[in-house]
Amino acid sequence: MKKNFLYLTRPGIDTHQEPVVYMREDCHVCHSEGFGAQGRVEVCTARGSIIATLNIVTGNLLSHEKAGLSEAAWRLLGAQENDKAFFRHAPPVDSMSVVRGKLYGKPITPEGAQGIITDICQGRYSDIQMAAYITACVANNLNLTETIAITRAMVNVGQRFDWGEGRIVVDKHCVGGLPGYRTTPIVVAIAAANGLVMPKTSSRAITSPAGTADTMETLTHVRLGFEQMRKVVEQEGACLAWGGSVSLSPTDDIIIRVERALDLDSEGQLVASVISKKVAAGSTHVLIDIPIGATAKVRSTSQAETLADLLRKTGEALGLTINVLFSDGSQPVGRGIGPALEAADLLAVLRNQPGAPADLRARSLTLAAALLEMGGLGDADKCRQLAQQTLESGAAWRKFEAICQAQGGLRELPVAAFTHEIVADRSGVIAMINNRVISRLASLAGAPGSPAAGVYLRVSVGDVVEAGDALMTLHAEAAGELEYALDFYQTHSDVVHIEAEVV
Amino acid sequence: MKKNFLYLTRPGIDTHQEPVVYMREDCHVCHSEGFGAQGRVEVCTARGSIIATLNIVTGNLLSHEKAGLSEAAWRLLGAQENDKAFFRHAPPVDSMSVVRGKLYGKPITPEGAQGIITDICQGRYSDIQMAAYITACVANNLNLTETIAITRAMVNVGQRFDWGEGRIVVDKHCVGGLPGYRTTPIVVAIAAANGLVMPKTSSRAITSPAGTADTMETLTHVRLGFEQMRKVVEQEGACLAWGGSVSLSPTDDIIIRVERALDLDSEGQLVASVISKKVAAGSTHVLIDIPIGATAKVRSTSQAETLADLLRKTGEALGLTINVLFSDGSQPVGRGIGPALEAADLLAVLRNQPGAPADLRARSLTLAAALLEMGGLGDADKCRQLAQQTLESGAAWRKFEAICQAQGGLRELPVAAFTHEIVADRSGVIAMINNRVISRLASLAGAPGSPAAGVYLRVSVGDVVEAGDALMTLHAEAAGELEYALDFYQTHSDVVHIEAEVV
Repeated sequence: MKKNFLYLTRPGIDTHQEPVVYMREDCHVCHSEGFGAQGRVEVCTARGSIIATLNIVTGNLLSHEKAGLSEAAWRLLGAQENDKAFFRHAPPVDSMSVVRGKLYGKPITPEGAQGIITDICQGRYSDIQMAAYITACVANNLNLTETIAITRAMVNVGQRFDWGEGRIVVDKHCVGGLPGYRTTPIVVAIAAANGLVMPKTSSRAITSPAGTADTMETLTHVRLGFEQMRKVVEQEGACLAWGGSVSLSPTDDIIIRVERALDLDSEGQLVASVISKKVAAGSTHVLIDIPIGATAKVRSTSQAETLADLLRKTGEALGLTINVLFSDGSQPVGRGIGPALEAADLLAVLRNQPGAPADLRARSLTLAAALLEMGGLGDADKCRQLAQQTLESGAAWRKFEAICQAQGGLRELPVAAFTHEIVADRSGVIAMINNRVISRLASLAGAPGSPAAGVYLRVSVGDVVEAGDALMTLHAEAAGELEYALDFYQTHSDVVHIEAEVV
Repeated sequence: MKKNFLYLTRPGIDTHQEPVVYMREDCHVCHSEGFGAQGRVEVCTARGSIIATLNIVTGNLLSHEKAGLSEAAWRLLGAQENDKAFFRHAPPVDSMSVVRGKLYGKPITPEGAQGIITDICQGRYSDIQMAAYITACVANNLNLTETIAITRAMVNVGQRFDWGEGRIVVDKHCVGGLPGYRTTPIVVAIAAANGLVMPKTSSRAITSPAGTADTMETLTHVRLGFEQMRKVVEQEGACLAWGGSVSLSPTDDIIIRVERALDLDSEGQLVASVISKKVAAGSTHVLIDIPIGATAKVRSTSQAETLADLLRKTGEALGLTINVLFSDGSQPVGRGIGPALEAADLLAVLRNQPGAPADLRARSLTLAAALLEMGGLGDADKCRQLAQQTLESGAAWRKFEAICQAQGGLRELPVAAFTHEIVADRSGVIAMINNRVISRLASLAGAPGSPAAGVYLRVSVGDVVEAGDALMTLHAEAAGELEYALDFYQTHSDVVHIEAEVV
């Protein structure tokens, strides 16, 4: 009988999250096991085993004794060049029966939820199985019990911080942020300057031109490991880390990527994502901000109330105190949209610079005050004053600097090589700025991949403009990206809607 | 500005159906367009354009001026080595909004159905989008109107035969066949020997150890093109072709593959698959056989009736006459399970050999008689006699030989290199044979990929056996596969359930 193993190699193919194994068409293992393209195969080495999707190689990419692994598979297995690997048909993923049950209307039990999340965490779901899970959650929306079960399961598969018995640990989260709405670093600085513990992790952009982690990365090092994050928080009371590097809710990134590709949102899954990360961060009191607006993610008060209720009840089931604030989601906040442009706005607010965006400042103070109140620092009036003082005295800026220093130093902001000013084609009043279209424009200009790229707004709703006045400036790091954004603008010039003034 | 194109190459990677494009991480196109791994990219050449999923290559698989295409992408684009290609972000797939709508309970309109099926046909759906479509159809099952719309759309995107105005063209289909239930070639031979037109296309195995096309391929050439199939049918009145090569309902294979990977069946989608292929084949009268049994696909009469109703009404809406027969699905039919072993059974029936499986013979005659009646050859009694005479006189065998000759000649059956006999571990009566487990056993032995592989049953339900009597023989082409099947048998030895006889 022929030997049933191959030696692993790393052809250097990045398939993002789905583990892929590459095997020759004429390979003896494929033949004896009866493997076919896109089959699910278990790859076992002395280091452990993973499930991967099979791609069949018909040319000479691989030598006869080798099987290749994609980057994701290589990482997941912790493989080394020439590891000896055995292969077999992947056993059926048990928890897919829970997904199928959900599709036919059967609720997900706590055990079922743990099965799904553990299997996702261990890379046992193929991308299409992930898609089926997400679609099932959208079609037969998760109820409260199921949402709580999924949340617990997501916490269970990751690491979790413990900041000490009885200690108040605060956090904030914004559901469906607006372009430029980068309050988090300001709120964290004010809270920490007042002695609160705030171990903040943020995400990168999913579909938007910048996430808080992208913006913070233009200013400091955000890829903190678990112990590094603990050290920063113990020293400064707070941090501004990228959640992906801390692995607090490791299934979250996997789920979000497929949701994004499908452009599908399950409310229950969204709540589980948010709450699981807060619990894992060791938070006790969480302020949630939901902007409402025609072109925001949440479009109506009733939609916001349903979401708030689910967030509150799920949080409470996991031992958190949750406060929810509704805010104005009718237009972008601040001037800059894109990592470095947003960083410049928040620096201006923290440094009390003249010309700092007043809307960003006011909204950051509102959120900071609410958080100070949750942290037990006094009533609403007192906390409002406290937040303002902390900002105006420079204490918030000093705390922000100290956090950045603890994370590895404060950086100079990158500047875009290419800019282009877009002007008003007529006179009138700015009646509307479309959040979705402006985000797309900043993305096409290269944000967040190119950190200096994005849109710098020169107007707000209600401003009066003359034909020829600047509406916004596009920033790009590459000429091609600038051109791409401009092309898009040609067909979407109503992104800033100007109405003729009635005299 | 840098040039925005690359030259195509073919690294020889088979990703099955999903088109994949491979680009270097440091490639100027990726950079200027802001592409990331698993992004959807439009690849445009002078030959046309396709949408593909991006895999980023970090090593030296590709030179700087090149982009690689997977085999599916290469075929879909009809690419040639060194074709100049331009790249851009794929525009959103419009019809995904119909899928999202369906998820939220909005019915699929005829235009929506055509949009989905056309996009799937043109390779515009990624695998995860396919998964979302299928999951949506399962979660909020397709109603009759939607099923009709999807069926029409599936017919519209493929080629269609026309055998002449007013001509009766018959067909048969079995929903969820049983292991070894290979009646089609016998029924086709009897029908054609009686002058009926029967342009039969069959599928390969999806999850079973053999499809009719796999079995027929051990006997003759089944990869007939459209014109080749027309020629065979015009000459012999019938054919036994593989549906995949004729491209009558090109989206069907794509959809079925994802359904299989998810182990999900949408009843509406199943009906659309079946009926669309019959309409495209130019059939007018279709006999549908639904085996019912505890371990069959359809497990109850009420489930069968719902399905029959949907098949009948959808078929009628597309101008077909549909008759549905329910049959006994409690155990495998015939002795052989696997392509060549099933072929041997049907040859024995066609040749009136002593020892030919009586159950396969009887059931083929029942179906053939029903089809002759639909074809207008007389009443039930007369057609029953006609079918039997056609078989017994050797006319059916001669017609079968003639069809095989017209398709390229009759082949010798392959024989397995490895066999192993499984014997009864106790005496008693065969109480049950599990269709699902026996199929899995044959698949593990290598069927249908290894055409000689499978299971040869030595007993039927009701037979009395002594300990040590043969229950079945495993056939394999490779020692590894035989071992694999035996391993599985150790934990599933109850596949043939023996009950002690009550004396």
